[in-house]
Amino acid sequence: VSCLDIDGLDMITLMTDFGTTDTYVGIMKGVISGIASHVPVVDLTHAVSPQNVLEGSARWETVCDYFPAGTVHVGVVDPGVGSKRSIVLVQTERAFWLAPDNGLLTMILNQELVHRVVRLTEKATPYCLPQVSATFHGRDVFAPIAAHLAMGLTPEALGDEISIESLVRLPETEAVWTQNAHEMHVAMRVLFADRFGNLILNLRHEDWQARAGKQTHLAVQAVSTEDDKLPLREISRTFADVAVGEPLLYWGSGSRLELALRDDSAAHRFRLAAGSPLTLVCHRH
Amino acid sequence: VSCLDIDGLDMITLMTDFGTTDTYVGIMKGVISGIASHVPVVDLTHAVSPQNVLEGSARWETVCDYFPAGTVHVGVVDPGVGSKRSIVLVQTERAFWLAPDNGLLTMILNQELVHRVVRLTEKATPYCLPQVSATFHGRDVFAPIAAHLAMGLTPEALGDEISIESLVRLPETEAVWTQNAHEMHVAMRVLFADRFGNLILNLRHEDWQARAGKQTHLAVQAVSTEDDKLPLREISRTFADVAVGEPLLYWGSGSRLELALRDDSAAHRFRLAAGSPLTLVCHRH
Amino acid sequence: VSCLDIDGLDMITLMTDFGTTDTYVGIMKGVISGIASHVPVVDLTHAVSPQNVLEGSARWETVCDYFPAGTVHVGVVDPGVGSKRSIVLVQTERAFWLAPDNGLLTMILNQELVHRVVRLTEKATPYCLPQVSATFHGRDVFAPIAAHLAMGLTPEALGDEISIESLVRLPETEAVWTQNAHEMHVAMRVLFADRFGNLILNLRHEDWQARAGKQTHLAVQAVSTEDDKLPLREISRTFADVAVGEPLLYWGSGSRLELALRDDSAAHRFRLAAGSPLTLVCHRH
Repeated sequence: VSCLDIDGLDMITLMTDFGTTDTYVGIMKGVISGIASHVPVVDLTHAVSPQNVLEGSARWETVCDYFPAGTVHVGVVDPGVGSKRSIVLVQTERAFWLAPDNGLLTMILNQELVHRVVRLTEKATPYCLPQVSATFHGRDVFAPIAAHLAMGLTPEALGDEISIESLVRLPETEAVWTQNAHEMHVAMRVLFADRFGNLILNLRHEDWQARAGKQTHLAVQAVSTEDDKLPLREISRTFADVAVGEPLLYWGSGSRLELALRDDSAAHRFRLAAGSPLTLVCHRH
Repeated sequence: VSCLDIDGLDMITLMTDFGTTDTYVGIMKGVISGIASHVPVVDLTHAVSPQNVLEGSARWETVCDYFPAGTVHVGVVDPGVGSKRSIVLVQTERAFWLAPDNGLLTMILNQELVHRVVRLTEKATPYCLPQVSATFHGRDVFAPIAAHLAMGLTPEALGDEISIESLVRLPETEAVWTQNAHEMHVAMRVLFADRFGNLILNLRHEDWQARAGKQTHLAVQAVSTEDDKLPLREISRTFADVAVGEPLLYWGSGSRLELALRDDSAAHRFRLAAGSPLTLVCHRH
Repeated sequence: VSCLDIDGLDMITLMTDFGTTDTYVGIMKGVISGIASHVPVVDLTHAVSPQNVLEGSARWETVCDYFPAGTVHVGVVDPGVGSKRSIVLVQTERAFWLAPDNGLLTMILNQELVHRVVRLTEKATPYCLPQVSATFHGRDVFAPIAAHLAMGLTPEALGDEISIESLVRLPETEAVWTQNAHEMHVAMRVLFADRFGNLILNLRHEDWQARAGKQTHLAVQAVSTEDDKLPLREISRTFADVAVGEPLLYWGSGSRLELALRDDSAAHRFRLAAGSPLTLVCHRH
């Protein structure tokens, strides 16, 4: 009897834009299990909109605090697969993040304390599948490397350490504040819409508190989109605070401001999607 | 080497209306694995129609007999999240059922032998995440408590024992029989439509046998919906018993009467969904 | 403490047309875990088009090389459930394949070295659930038998060995080559469309190399569908080789020719689905 040493095992998560209609995700799990038998693999989501790096980056951020230390997070939203884009490994205080260097790491870099960044080189070749295709690096590169990392491989074995500044970052991922004597405007963007059509925005609760907390009198007045101006007098605590069909702002479970309609889809009603601009108008008095 | 003691491990299942587009389900699994590393987690479904407690209750019933003893079933169809609704734990002969007290347990209570019901109180707080949000109890309450239960926590540690009668139950979940000299009418409702558009109805095989078994001559004649009257002369054994495109009644894999069209969607053709009424007409002669 | 003997454990994969809306797949996993606790179960896909045996067969082929030796692959695309169709177990060099004998194994038989074929008989009854329904053999037959196989049951225990020639095979699964002095025509079919609308075709890279490699001068000229004739001068290496919206041919990750549109759906634009015919026109000079 050979026993399973659970101390030596980490966990792997997968986030892709592959969907679950095809066998792509299952094949990645097969490759992982061939190397790291019995390492648990958790699906974060495979429904990132195809090639939408902003959405992937924002979805990834939601999981930071909720997985055990040492988890290897694999993100494959990779329009440049087969081209010369790099693959990088970022080690933060609690986790590893393996991704193409195309901006997918932006939100993690903004939020987490980074210990080390490694750009994969040919040193990583022995840890990939023997044949690397031009179109499916999830199977041939990301899955086997994640499995080796979960089994204890050190990041330096995969390539060269690089500076955090050299990584690709997405523009306009943070809200922009402008103020005059009477009003504060926060120019925001939609990061993604969740299944219910709730819109997750690029304004963090901690940033709001740092800014709005200094204002003695700051009251939410409205949210403006290109087409609509919604009078909203407060940030609600929960959906039950408004009537069915009414809009509300609230701090979502990921500590970001969200715009929703009770029992309806805000994304659909207001015609907003990842990247859409909107403005939070606050009054000072 | 520390070995995995598989005798001490149970299994957890998840049923939600969260969908799999978002990271919500993955995050719940991350929380579980931080507490109960290597407890297997099985997805029952995350596609319950948003906030449809009747559908969730009926879907949950289908799994009762097919999981190992000691399984912890977690159900999060929870329109009242953030309000004062309770969370309850029901222990049946073979399993634990953790759910909001909103009717989601109705079908389990109707069918299973209940050993104990505990309403969660502040005693449960040490087993939740340190910060409990107003909108995502799946992550902050249900996941960590299920993980602790799977690791052996006793139900009493979570709150106060209450009577089964004090739980919220959904109305009209059982078929209603009316009869005269020549006909038997069974007023039924659709519980849910499955992926193929087959309609699962609230008439159990055991109830049919108990009632119809006593009739010396009882023949199925028709199914009436609000819009259609379908002549159906028998309860079929399998789809192959009727021609392509034809309707049939049969006892489904969950021991409930189902109405289907061979190679087509009955839900779509007859415009029926969870809650829709229909009547089974039988003839006595 | 009783330890988990990981040497004695294999892996199980599931491919069905059940979808993930319903609890069917979760129930299969419950049955498996009751017999083979802690055997990992991987979902290949549950989104095979309902009852589309050709699509299922082609999707199954993609996973052959990527799972550990000894994996038990379960395929349930089974329009004949409840009728007299057989269930068969095929043992190849690296894996077991459990499926209805309806053609679902065609691509595996075409590609893999078969060691043994067993047709399930009443010998298998002790390894099924006690009650076998007429409609859900995935739960009552496939899941428990796969679990017993993963725990080490030998195939002979399940039925009688039969010849590979006696298995049902789908027609027209291989491309047909015709040539004259100046042109080579390859009559192909679409096997399935992936999530992105890329069309996977029934022409293998190895067959192309064996045939086209002998031609001193063979140049791709066009792809003809019933409605369109697309001038395509080469087989590309990756999507980045063509402009956005343009069509391309390339060898997919499963070593089959694929037809795609960069950043668009070829399935939708060209109105092609599983089974649709199309022709690859090549020029000799």
